[in-house]
Amino acid sequence: MNDNQLRDVAWKIMRAALAAVDPARAVKNYFAAHPDAAAHIQTTPGRVFVVGAGKAGAPMAQAVAELFGNAIAGGCVIVKTGHTGKTPPPNIDVRQAAHPVPDESGLQAARQIEQLLAQTTPDDTVLCLISGGGSALLTLPAEGISLADLQETTRQLLAAGSTINEINTIRKHLSAVKGGGLARMAAPARIYTLILSDVVGDPLEVIASGPTVPDPSTFADAWALVERYRLQNSLPAAVAQRLRAGVAGLVADTPKPGNPIFEHVQNQIIGSNLIAARAAVQAAESAGFSAQLLSTFVEGEAREVGRVVAGLAKGLLKNETALARPACLVLGGETTVTLKGSGKGGRNQEMALAAAIALQGWPNALVVCLGTDGNDGPTDAAGAFADGNTVARARAQGLDAPDFLNRNDAYHFFEALDQLIITGPTNTNVNDLTLILAGR
Amino acid sequence: MNDNQLRDVAWKIMRAALAAVDPARAVKNYFAAHPDAAAHIQTTPGRVFVVGAGKAGAPMAQAVAELFGNAIAGGCVIVKTGHTGKTPPPNIDVRQAAHPVPDESGLQAARQIEQLLAQTTPDDTVLCLISGGGSALLTLPAEGISLADLQETTRQLLAAGSTINEINTIRKHLSAVKGGGLARMAAPARIYTLILSDVVGDPLEVIASGPTVPDPSTFADAWALVERYRLQNSLPAAVAQRLRAGVAGLVADTPKPGNPIFEHVQNQIIGSNLIAARAAVQAAESAGFSAQLLSTFVEGEAREVGRVVAGLAKGLLKNETALARPACLVLGGETTVTLKGSGKGGRNQEMALAAAIALQGWPNALVVCLGTDGNDGPTDAAGAFADGNTVARARAQGLDAPDFLNRNDAYHFFEALDQLIITGPTNTNVNDLTLILAGR
Repeated sequence: MNDNQLRDVAWKIMRAALAAVDPARAVKNYFAAHPDAAAHIQTTPGRVFVVGAGKAGAPMAQAVAELFGNAIAGGCVIVKTGHTGKTPPPNIDVRQAAHPVPDESGLQAARQIEQLLAQTTPDDTVLCLISGGGSALLTLPAEGISLADLQETTRQLLAAGSTINEINTIRKHLSAVKGGGLARMAAPARIYTLILSDVVGDPLEVIASGPTVPDPSTFADAWALVERYRLQNSLPAAVAQRLRAGVAGLVADTPKPGNPIFEHVQNQIIGSNLIAARAAVQAAESAGFSAQLLSTFVEGEAREVGRVVAGLAKGLLKNETALARPACLVLGGETTVTLKGSGKGGRNQEMALAAAIALQGWPNALVVCLGTDGNDGPTDAAGAFADGNTVARARAQGLDAPDFLNRNDAYHFFEALDQLIITGPTNTNVNDLTLILAGR
Repeated sequence: MNDNQLRDVAWKIMRAALAAVDPARAVKNYFAAHPDAAAHIQTTPGRVFVVGAGKAGAPMAQAVAELFGNAIAGGCVIVKTGHTGKTPPPNIDVRQAAHPVPDESGLQAARQIEQLLAQTTPDDTVLCLISGGGSALLTLPAEGISLADLQETTRQLLAAGSTINEINTIRKHLSAVKGGGLARMAAPARIYTLILSDVVGDPLEVIASGPTVPDPSTFADAWALVERYRLQNSLPAAVAQRLRAGVAGLVADTPKPGNPIFEHVQNQIIGSNLIAARAAVQAAESAGFSAQLLSTFVEGEAREVGRVVAGLAKGLLKNETALARPACLVLGGETTVTLKGSGKGGRNQEMALAAAIALQGWPNALVVCLGTDGNDGPTDAAGAFADGNTVARARAQGLDAPDFLNRNDAYHFFEALDQLIITGPTNTNVNDLTLILAGR
């Protein structure tokens, strides 16, 4: 197969994968697959509230509004500034807030959600719509803590070398909504939380900091981390004071697994890397390719993962695998880039460039590196195509592939070759997909 | 399955994979599968000579001697100092030479091979036994070039940033044996070259610098590289002089594809990463595991490849792949380590350590990183086992896994945990294997 034929198939696969995790479609798919939940919302004598946060909040809220219309008593969904969608859903406020650094507008919107949930009764139902960015967008510091206190705490933890999990443990104990806090506000109402996951492996307690998920970590855990990183005396006074009060049992801890407030909570992943990857496999098979998903847990330095991906492509081309060609391997996850240069790019474009270098001279394969949100790094591309002729085509234009890689400038490399993948913003984010196609 | 059960299965798989590429067994397998070749050697009216070079030269020569005994008229095989094996084969000199930097003994041995091959007639047959290290061990500079000239040339090319392929192009044009030179010496005899490949992808022209393989590169190519790296005036005079003479057509170029001397040459890979990997798949299946080879072309920075491997293990554990558990994925290739610290380790141990860190808290999987020669880096271990409890076990002993990884000290990490893989020298080398096992 020539490069264009492989790219045509790749586009079919990408479109199918992205469609499977389209926010509105994912919401509708969920209720189509769970008619009990849909019927409950349509016929409940109680009220139905819609709350939530995340970059995909607007299309998710619009889908809910289309499905349930007047059954919705009211709601508030917090989205990233500019992500309000085309049609504002009736009865649901779509409020904008800053991302990734929380701001006062977000805080005001979170207070509106708090007030909305304060009035719920056991008859009521809360639909909670969560998507990527939800953790920053849904920010409501615990009493006495300011936004500035939170930022300073995060800054100190990062500087001390703590992991993202450790930071989240502490943040959950400084928040009114994270770590099950929103479920506590909404109790005793029934809660359906629909989640579009942007975290590798879909850990419920991590996505948007788990607003309706039990938090196994305690104030004691949080304080132990503060001591481990020797921040007892440098943290903002209000933060240290709250954590000490928590350890002393003077402040309620986050709700733990087994807490009865979770009896009426259902957390459901409605869109994820796995769902997109499975749709990709199906689309590849529809195109006549034998296809296989290997893992949605691919992490690592983008340029090195790209080399491994090229190695997998060679295995396909040499018929080392059990897959008959034409064949397609699907991988999912999220790589990282350690910046060395000052070029323009993103992790998917960088991975593709490294794959192209390793694949030099191997015809009949195509590597596709795609960020499902349509924005790979600070660029307007979702990713890039790499094949065995890419480096030679570049050389013919006077472009040196390793040099572009060294400068982290994959965008300009692929732009010159017309090998960028441009989808525009997809309004969804379920991390990245890598496709490895090999022709017959 | 518990860790010990998975390790037992892993040992079965490793033993089967190593047995499949045992040098003596690989030679015997070749002739068992090619009875015509065996019959020709046993019944030819001409003489049979055995030559060759490589770390596995001794057991390969012993196998040939066992098979063909008195049919062998004489021979000379060059091995690394200390690799002479137990029983010297009758009629074949096993000569020792330095590796990886060629020395005068190697040169003398290569001259003996040259003299042996000078007497061949069209009735004669040459068995050429090639294995890892053959390029350095089989060194015979072209007339007028000294060992010191070769070393200085390599040094300058490396310092100028040229690739290993570019260095080989130049070396072939400074050698009497590389790049088809040995085939030219042996012509018009018939040649069977049996190759134990230590190069990823088994490129015949690269393994041991292809002594019986056509060389597509020309003196013009070699000189173009010299000019590209601006070494015209710094290379040793004899080297520059020979290359210029070659460009001017005053010296015969290496024999090219289509040259009639190759009509009677057969180059055969008898042991390779692919052969070992396929044996691993078979052994895993015999142990009741569903098993799959993904690629023998895995390259990249060891610690990043280790993270990807952990990602693949997670995919198996989460049943994302088509493989039913218990399952085993097999990967082959050779990673690299960019040294940062001054610890002790090797690429396989480093990969295993990175995999262990990424696999923390994921029970029921085992990652096996194995160097098939039994010596991973400058250590007496072939590699290491990694699983989801490794990091916790280490912590219980006061060992911090990321710290050991930062210091490139995987050997001491795994030694303390009794997770080193110790095989002793295997007398073979077909790069590295990675096994990813997931229990039921």
